[in-house]
Amino acid sequence: MSDFLIDDELLAAIDMGSNSFHLAIARVDHGEVKKVASMSEKVQLAAGLDENNYLSEAAQQRGLACLSRFVGRLSAVPRNRMRIVATNALRQAENGDEFMQKAAEILPKPIEIIAGREEARLIYLGVSHTMANGGRRLVIDIGGGSTEFIIGEKFEPLNTESLQMGCVAYTKAYFPDGDITQKAFDKAVVAARKELSAIANTYMQTGWDTVVGSSGTIKACRQVMVNMNLSDEQDNVTIEGLHKLKEKLLKFDHVSKIDFDGLRDDRRQVLPAGLAILYAVFDVFKLEKLAFSDGALREGVMYDLLGRFRHEDIRDRSVQAMMGRYGADQKQAERVVETAQQLFDQSAKILDLSVEDGDLLRRAAYLHEIGLAISHGGYHRHGAYLLQHSDIPGFSQIDQNHLSHLVAHHRRKLRQDALHDVKKVGSMHLVYLCLLLRLAVLLNHSRSDADLPAFHLTVKNEHTWQLTISGDVKQWPLLIAELQDEQVQFKHWQVDLEIDSALD
Amino acid sequence: MSDFLIDDELLAAIDMGSNSFHLAIARVDHGEVKKVASMSEKVQLAAGLDENNYLSEAAQQRGLACLSRFVGRLSAVPRNRMRIVATNALRQAENGDEFMQKAAEILPKPIEIIAGREEARLIYLGVSHTMANGGRRLVIDIGGGSTEFIIGEKFEPLNTESLQMGCVAYTKAYFPDGDITQKAFDKAVVAARKELSAIANTYMQTGWDTVVGSSGTIKACRQVMVNMNLSDEQDNVTIEGLHKLKEKLLKFDHVSKIDFDGLRDDRRQVLPAGLAILYAVFDVFKLEKLAFSDGALREGVMYDLLGRFRHEDIRDRSVQAMMGRYGADQKQAERVVETAQQLFDQSAKILDLSVEDGDLLRRAAYLHEIGLAISHGGYHRHGAYLLQHSDIPGFSQIDQNHLSHLVAHHRRKLRQDALHDVKKVGSMHLVYLCLLLRLAVLLNHSRSDADLPAFHLTVKNEHTWQLTISGDVKQWPLLIAELQDEQVQFKHWQVDLEIDSALD
Repeated sequence: MSDFLIDDELLAAIDMGSNSFHLAIARVDHGEVKKVASMSEKVQLAAGLDENNYLSEAAQQRGLACLSRFVGRLSAVPRNRMRIVATNALRQAENGDEFMQKAAEILPKPIEIIAGREEARLIYLGVSHTMANGGRRLVIDIGGGSTEFIIGEKFEPLNTESLQMGCVAYTKAYFPDGDITQKAFDKAVVAARKELSAIANTYMQTGWDTVVGSSGTIKACRQVMVNMNLSDEQDNVTIEGLHKLKEKLLKFDHVSKIDFDGLRDDRRQVLPAGLAILYAVFDVFKLEKLAFSDGALREGVMYDLLGRFRHEDIRDRSVQAMMGRYGADQKQAERVVETAQQLFDQSAKILDLSVEDGDLLRRAAYLHEIGLAISHGGYHRHGAYLLQHSDIPGFSQIDQNHLSHLVAHHRRKLRQDALHDVKKVGSMHLVYLCLLLRLAVLLNHSRSDADLPAFHLTVKNEHTWQLTISGDVKQWPLLIAELQDEQVQFKHWQVDLEIDSALD
Repeated sequence: MSDFLIDDELLAAIDMGSNSFHLAIARVDHGEVKKVASMSEKVQLAAGLDENNYLSEAAQQRGLACLSRFVGRLSAVPRNRMRIVATNALRQAENGDEFMQKAAEILPKPIEIIAGREEARLIYLGVSHTMANGGRRLVIDIGGGSTEFIIGEKFEPLNTESLQMGCVAYTKAYFPDGDITQKAFDKAVVAARKELSAIANTYMQTGWDTVVGSSGTIKACRQVMVNMNLSDEQDNVTIEGLHKLKEKLLKFDHVSKIDFDGLRDDRRQVLPAGLAILYAVFDVFKLEKLAFSDGALREGVMYDLLGRFRHEDIRDRSVQAMMGRYGADQKQAERVVETAQQLFDQSAKILDLSVEDGDLLRRAAYLHEIGLAISHGGYHRHGAYLLQHSDIPGFSQIDQNHLSHLVAHHRRKLRQDALHDVKKVGSMHLVYLCLLLRLAVLLNHSRSDADLPAFHLTVKNEHTWQLTISGDVKQWPLLIAELQDEQVQFKHWQVDLEIDSALD
């Protein structure tokens, strides 16, 4: 695929934040993402979480209505050039699945819930592409449900953290009725300082040259400071301006009365909480000022998407990094990857598997033995645990869930109830990928290039697969015995695996 | 402690194997373990496992009766110089807890169930101390339930593996009624070859200079070969001897009829299965001969015990290795270790905590953050998973279980039902260690040496602890706020934590 073709089509990202949903559509111009359209709506999803983290029906409806409006704008964007990511509110929601299912009926692509650190990485990617290079940067993004902190240089994040505090969550906790008091404000500041204490020393030790903020809260604070002349420095949020803003805020006894020049109506309600968090951040990190950046999660998502087309897929780097950490046998992994690729090429068309399915299979093949670093016994389960729970740059939770299922089922028995689980998580596509990975692993049991026979997989139909082994099968008595055992396992997953030998 | 004192007392090891239980008592002479007494009984624990891995009442009674007889010989051995280890049969037994509880009433120390790789490591330690150095060694130990394979040089194992095949388990599977047929023998050989295929190539690539066998099966085969003149080489088991032995064996149609010169009666029943496994091992590894070593698991256990007294505790090396793999923050770990040590010193006496408890606390303190390598969210749970499931040289499963509980409860809420679990696993001692670790971690939340106040823990009684912070508490507002939250958690575990400040 030439760069011309890549650059000619649009990119889109939807960021389903805990406070606002954002849509950005962009075209690519000389390798840069240039926004051509954007929409934002204050959905306040996080405000709809009750004490048991159930997302209210009303909040779900607000979210779905907003997504419907966004979808209307997506028709010109190819499906493989858009991503829809969700952050803290959906990470927390106990009934997130329910919402995801309803959303799936509206959206052209599945929603990807991303982990806090992945959110931080993408925010940094967005900010770093929209700011001039200023040495080592601390980037702060105060969201509705979580706040991300990243230290990075150029386009590389060094530290990424996501803390459980945000302007919507803190509004619910400290300003539930909209009343503004010194006491409530102080409580919110203490709570934020407590969260920050977990990362403060590490971050202070890493250090930074410049500080950048990138969220609606910070944008609003800056705008008010500028409009009301609270700060000496045009465009920067300063500690001095913050003090003045806080004093002015505390003069109002209710959010409805806040009357700041430059403040949008829909920001009023969450301003006290957002300001308290920003105040704690300045205090703990001993900041004097920060610059505002318009680049944020959605820009990061688009730059990440662009990287995937340019063969700079962060996910492949993450796979290699995990193999390194867990000391996976690189040669064996590559054998299984190659065999899996062949099996995939021989079956993808009739099984209706996509290029993305092939990527998933390749990555699972690279990672299938990482659990050995923990223990030999049940290592497929340990690998699955690591893939389910690790922060893996570039992967959404659903990606990781798919990888985890592939690794969990790459050996040992295939139980019938597991078929149901796998189908639910990734439809029949994931079921087929599991079976292809099993065959690829089994064919390489000898862990030697020399001992791999030539083979061909013919998928006659969904329920009948034929594996042909070239040459005299007597050469591989163990392999044939193992394939015969494997027929029983395939049968549990409703596939007849025929073993055939072709004498060349 | 001087070497003189160390060497003056006896050491003992009980090895509760799947086929036989062994007791060895030794004294230490110039750094070598010299056996002064030993006992073995063919308990055949593994034969008492049913298809659901339930250990029969009869097998339990055989085991307990044997242990009672062993205990009679242990009176001269100090408690901290003995270890009781159990292997595959108890690793597999679903109702192992039941047996362990009954055994606890007889034994002076708890039984430690060790993982397959740990068993392999200890076997190698035993063999390497009883054989002259012969370059790179392959050591094979065919047990009742599992077979261990180790490649090592001098005293260092390079590869350790434990496969699920053993002379008792294979007797049950392939010679259940004692009938000997060519077909049954061949089936057992194929099954063993299949198990071996998982490790064969890796082991062949590592390579070896000499081969050593160390189990009852191998000892019996060698003895028969010698007595019946089946092999050219005195003392070695050769491939030629093995072929002859197999042919002679297949002439009998039932184990009761086996009439080999030099074979003990109680070995007859498991000889066909043991020989089939050995036969497969020779075949897959292309061996020509192997030497027999009398050193085995029990010798390894005693050398390991000796190392602990000589400050060469393999467990400390394992802790450092895990910290390395998971990139733990060494400085922070050391801060928490030091604080935990102080808290331990201030409270051990009144809480009746032992030196071993202190070791456990120190190791948990080193390892409490390893889960961060997986993910920030819930990292205590990830650390607990790693400690529960990893093969960690030197640790028994109960050690790992204790470590896992300590790490799991070092932060976040202490639920009341968790108190019950922790107490069950490690009595009130483990509960106290959890609380000490929490305090040590909390006091070091700032991750800085400078920000740690002087403190003193006074345990007034089991249910009332007082933590005194020296100096003006206003210096540490966050710390005090966190300690106040911690009081609530301690209360869930039935301890009143009083926070006091002493102005110096």
